[in-house]
Amino acid sequence: MAKKDVSKAAIALHKKLGGKIRIMPAAKVANRDDLSLVYTPGVAAVSSLVAKNPKLARDYTIKGRMIAVISDGSAVLGLGNIGPLGALPVMEGKCALFKTFADVDAFPLVLDTQDPDEIIAAVMAVAPAFGGINLEDIAAPKCFYIEEELKKRLSIPVMHDDQHGTAIVVLAGLINSAKVVGKKLNDPNCWIVVSGVGAAGVAIMRLLKLAAPKVNIIAVDSVGIVGNARQDLNDTKKKLIKDGIVFAGGEGSLEKALVDANIFIGVSKPGVLTPVMIKTMAPKPIIFAMANPTPEILPELALAAGAAVVATGRSDYPNQVNNSLAFPGIFRGALDNRVQKITDQMKMKAAQNLAALVKRPTAQKVIPGPFEKGIAQAVARAIR
Amino acid sequence: MAKKDVSKAAIALHKKLGGKIRIMPAAKVANRDDLSLVYTPGVAAVSSLVAKNPKLARDYTIKGRMIAVISDGSAVLGLGNIGPLGALPVMEGKCALFKTFADVDAFPLVLDTQDPDEIIAAVMAVAPAFGGINLEDIAAPKCFYIEEELKKRLSIPVMHDDQHGTAIVVLAGLINSAKVVGKKLNDPNCWIVVSGVGAAGVAIMRLLKLAAPKVNIIAVDSVGIVGNARQDLNDTKKKLIKDGIVFAGGEGSLEKALVDANIFIGVSKPGVLTPVMIKTMAPKPIIFAMANPTPEILPELALAAGAAVVATGRSDYPNQVNNSLAFPGIFRGALDNRVQKITDQMKMKAAQNLAALVKRPTAQKVIPGPFEKGIAQAVARAIR
Repeated sequence: MAKKDVSKAAIALHKKLGGKIRIMPAAKVANRDDLSLVYTPGVAAVSSLVAKNPKLARDYTIKGRMIAVISDGSAVLGLGNIGPLGALPVMEGKCALFKTFADVDAFPLVLDTQDPDEIIAAVMAVAPAFGGINLEDIAAPKCFYIEEELKKRLSIPVMHDDQHGTAIVVLAGLINSAKVVGKKLNDPNCWIVVSGVGAAGVAIMRLLKLAAPKVNIIAVDSVGIVGNARQDLNDTKKKLIKDGIVFAGGEGSLEKALVDANIFIGVSKPGVLTPVMIKTMAPKPIIFAMANPTPEILPELALAAGAAVVATGRSDYPNQVNNSLAFPGIFRGALDNRVQKITDQMKMKAAQNLAALVKRPTAQKVIPGPFEKGIAQAVARAIR
Repeated sequence: MAKKDVSKAAIALHKKLGGKIRIMPAAKVANRDDLSLVYTPGVAAVSSLVAKNPKLARDYTIKGRMIAVISDGSAVLGLGNIGPLGALPVMEGKCALFKTFADVDAFPLVLDTQDPDEIIAAVMAVAPAFGGINLEDIAAPKCFYIEEELKKRLSIPVMHDDQHGTAIVVLAGLINSAKVVGKKLNDPNCWIVVSGVGAAGVAIMRLLKLAAPKVNIIAVDSVGIVGNARQDLNDTKKKLIKDGIVFAGGEGSLEKALVDANIFIGVSKPGVLTPVMIKTMAPKPIIFAMANPTPEILPELALAAGAAVVATGRSDYPNQVNNSLAFPGIFRGALDNRVQKITDQMKMKAAQNLAALVKRPTAQKVIPGPFEKGIAQAVARAIR
């Protein structure tokens, strides 16, 4: 199996590297003169200057270029709660991608606590050296509280990438998918079913509703349709109803929700979507099956059942919904323009810019590939 | 004045650089195959492996190579409490030196709190990604409590460099200075006066007494001799007496303490040592005047008053006592040998190794220069 080979090769590479990032001095320190500028005594003048004018920190220190990638390891990839050390390889990889795709310097911090308030305190404590905070792989629903609090308290941008990075790429893909099938997203006749109401699902629904206010969204969790009939909803789900994000009139199963729906968005579990269900959807259904590494339905089965466009999280099928299309450019733009918040409008614009990179969308290509040129720059232009 | 020029040039260099460190990926990510190894899906296998076997983190992640340089900005250089952003240029410089002198990857974290327990909580929270913690420029006496607590609670080495880095270099310099004047340190007739009982002073005295148990040390703070007659001593100073580190029988001024003393160690304030005082010391006095940037006495004045050896913290005089001789090698050794604590024995041995690098000590050379070969390696050999 190809998948086993990747695991083996990945383990070997990581052992060889011993960590995926390195720290490099920005200037040579080759003699006493260098030392007196980079370190004492010269650095004292810089320290005094920055202490007196904190805003100058972005010009004179790493604060102008450095992003913290922070996780508590509570929801890592599809692996679940594997803790901070288990999360570290993912965060390092993310930092390597930040540099590769957008020349953003990023450093991974994995936290030895999973308590929301302790996480907030730790992020607040380390914030001064950073120009932005990329939260990563923090479980729902606490991720919502942590992100909201940090956004309130910090004057640098804070973004939980599992939510918003995913939402931006999904919206970009849907914009182009709608073109491919000749439909409009912003239409009361457009029905979208979202399977999975975790970090990604909630952010996707909120961004979708912002970009296409007339669309109808049905949210489905492991119990069934999230609606007024349910007595077991947590605050996050209640708020989706209260804010008018989801159509709350339904009840029942995913199967029921999908009848006559136009779009399926899966951020849930392998295998929850069946060919039979796809056949009950409206003509030319769009299927985004993004459970990792095994999607809600395999693309070949979805296509055979009539799907017009299929996207997954996998690199071995067309249309890979990959956060690396969004997060490097988001923070590139945030640093360049020194924005204090990444707003919903910026995210929507980022998705539009990303979608526009695909000049002629087809069923095989609704999203750019990660190594195409100009992706980070196009996204960065939205963050101002 | 030369000093003004350094400030101006340092400010210009920092503005040009915009931060003194960069993050570099350890492996190229040039195509989908690379991506699948460095990031998803391959990284999942590494995350699972490390989560199941936390000890493997040192082999498969940056934990095996990364040191955190952490400060709250409460006692930065001679600038005092200038806060985290003011401290950041110093911490970045330190990280640049870690790499330059010992190929150690180090990252600066400056904390938005100066509360000891909050500092401890923040360091504990971020510890998983690091193989060691270099505390820096934290004010006394809280630095003692913070370091002790972290050493107890963490299984990676923790060192407050203002204390122990300085102590190691001073001890190295004194070992060679004693040779130059033909005296022994470990002798009940050897009297040392230490001016300044802050972070550096306390650590210097404790390491000295360990290396030379027979030596007599008189500690002098801003009030006078630290001894039994004093009613105003804080816990740190009381403990110096209780532990038998200092000779506690005296009372009075620095002037009085210095009569017939062999060695003066200043980690206090500019100008507190006068030529007249040096003339009352025993023959061939050794003067380490390390207040920064202006020493307790200028070397030319000390020499004119009869000093046999003079060391300062300055690069423009011989015998510069510079922490960069110690900290890179200390953590190089700690990482290489995966030590959990940096013990007093290791520090003593590091000082001895550092001293031994000067083959034929003279009054002009009791300490190696920072750019001589083999320094970090010699120090690292002591940390095992």
